[in-house]
Amino acid sequence: MVHVIDIDDPADPRLDDFRDLNSSDRRPDLPGGKGLVVAEGVLVVQRMLDSRFPLHAMLGVDRRLGELADDLRDTGWAGLSPDVPYYRTDADVMAEVVGFHLNRGVLGVAYRPEPLDVVEVIEKATTVAVLEGVNDHENIGSMFRNAAGLGVDAVLFGKGCADPLYRRAVRVSMGHVLRVPFAHADQWPHDLDTLRDRGFQLISLTPNPEAMPLAEAMTGEKVALLLGAEGPGLTEQAMRATDVRARIPMAPGTDSLNVATAAAMAFYERVRIPG
Amino acid sequence: MVHVIDIDDPADPRLDDFRDLNSSDRRPDLPGGKGLVVAEGVLVVQRMLDSRFPLHAMLGVDRRLGELADDLRDTGWAGLSPDVPYYRTDADVMAEVVGFHLNRGVLGVAYRPEPLDVVEVIEKATTVAVLEGVNDHENIGSMFRNAAGLGVDAVLFGKGCADPLYRRAVRVSMGHVLRVPFAHADQWPHDLDTLRDRGFQLISLTPNPEAMPLAEAMTGEKVALLLGAEGPGLTEQAMRATDVRARIPMAPGTDSLNVATAAAMAFYERVRIPG
Repeated sequence: MVHVIDIDDPADPRLDDFRDLNSSDRRPDLPGGKGLVVAEGVLVVQRMLDSRFPLHAMLGVDRRLGELADDLRDTGWAGLSPDVPYYRTDADVMAEVVGFHLNRGVLGVAYRPEPLDVVEVIEKATTVAVLEGVNDHENIGSMFRNAAGLGVDAVLFGKGCADPLYRRAVRVSMGHVLRVPFAHADQWPHDLDTLRDRGFQLISLTPNPEAMPLAEAMTGEKVALLLGAEGPGLTEQAMRATDVRARIPMAPGTDSLNVATAAAMAFYERVRIPG
Repeated sequence: MVHVIDIDDPADPRLDDFRDLNSSDRRPDLPGGKGLVVAEGVLVVQRMLDSRFPLHAMLGVDRRLGELADDLRDTGWAGLSPDVPYYRTDADVMAEVVGFHLNRGVLGVAYRPEPLDVVEVIEKATTVAVLEGVNDHENIGSMFRNAAGLGVDAVLFGKGCADPLYRRAVRVSMGHVLRVPFAHADQWPHDLDTLRDRGFQLISLTPNPEAMPLAEAMTGEKVALLLGAEGPGLTEQAMRATDVRARIPMAPGTDSLNVATAAAMAFYERVRIPG
């Protein structure tokens, strides 16, 4: 059950987890970082409620409380303690607390749970995206949105990726970063062997015109798609660890695609003819 | 041949076309709008040089002039008059003129040429994207980038679309909005008949789960793909004017995809197996 608490003083210490949001979602090892996971807006708060991220408190206007009422009534969700507070206030107080004007009217925060491990997230998966060097939060958010929409089961982060739990990534993903399981492949690139040992075909995506067209390269029942950042792409080390190099057929003289867009096409290739 | 003119006074009237860029790229019928087409950065200026948009003047730092030297030496490009000026200055003067700090170091401006018409742009096309109600410049820019990369021949704008020549759209497209031909379908939706008369299969993309999977629906040798804005989608009127309604197979309980991403998958479907 939600516990509604009216607040009119922006300095109220109960709101400290919502303060200066532009830095508090940083990882705890970065300046100002508390490692909080922040859900913005009704839809993303709903997805947080339905996730492994234990909602800890909400800050929002009365109208959004009404919109969330049905979701909050059901106490069956994992991690929703019986007395999670909804700090109810107005838009001006919210803006003063978080440090900028928010137009979504409600925020939820969760503490980071224990990270999942590689074996755990790939166990029942048949399609896995594996990222290396993708350091843009917006691309990571888009990728999770597309992964959720196109039935990708898990995401693995190799070396040099940005934090997927950063607020902007959560927002751009429309909350799917909270729901599509992910793990950090700390043994890079050796964790790729773990995928191969479990029967995944490892496919690296590259703009190299000599690589095979993706549609012909993707033959495995279980597939791990490796994607690198736009520009540098995958490291040679990661590419060597894969079974096949695949490309999206591109028009001559054009740029490589945005990484989230390229990923979406690879995800689409898996589901284009519904089984 | 380029004509280099050194400038150190930000008030110099020769720079008026670069002034207050945040409004001057608006259509001439909007406040502050001059309808200028603005290319930002070396790559996009190069694409403007190689387009139907006649480059009128450049403003930039010395280093970018050097990077463009080879491109500017060749006077064979359409529209590059023999004395197009390069106003050479420093980053501070540039920032003062345009109204904000630019980190790409060079701008090109063109006046809008006469718009192309529908028949002209579809004449030799085999894949055409047709947009309705897509009013976000970033989505339009991404769509042009993907259209260029995946060999789409032309874009038609139906009712309610944002201006593709707005600076942000040009930038996000990486200049491809200057190169992929487009036209405004002012007779909406009757212009769709023009496509059908010329042998195009008209396919509307919809998240409706009862529509056919895109991969099965797309049977025409010449294809026009209709896309509406995320959220409202295509109007019923536009959908009724098409031959088939198609969907991208999505996981249950997820959102529709971003419109530029959905378009990219449809474009990909056309080229996935290189002929």
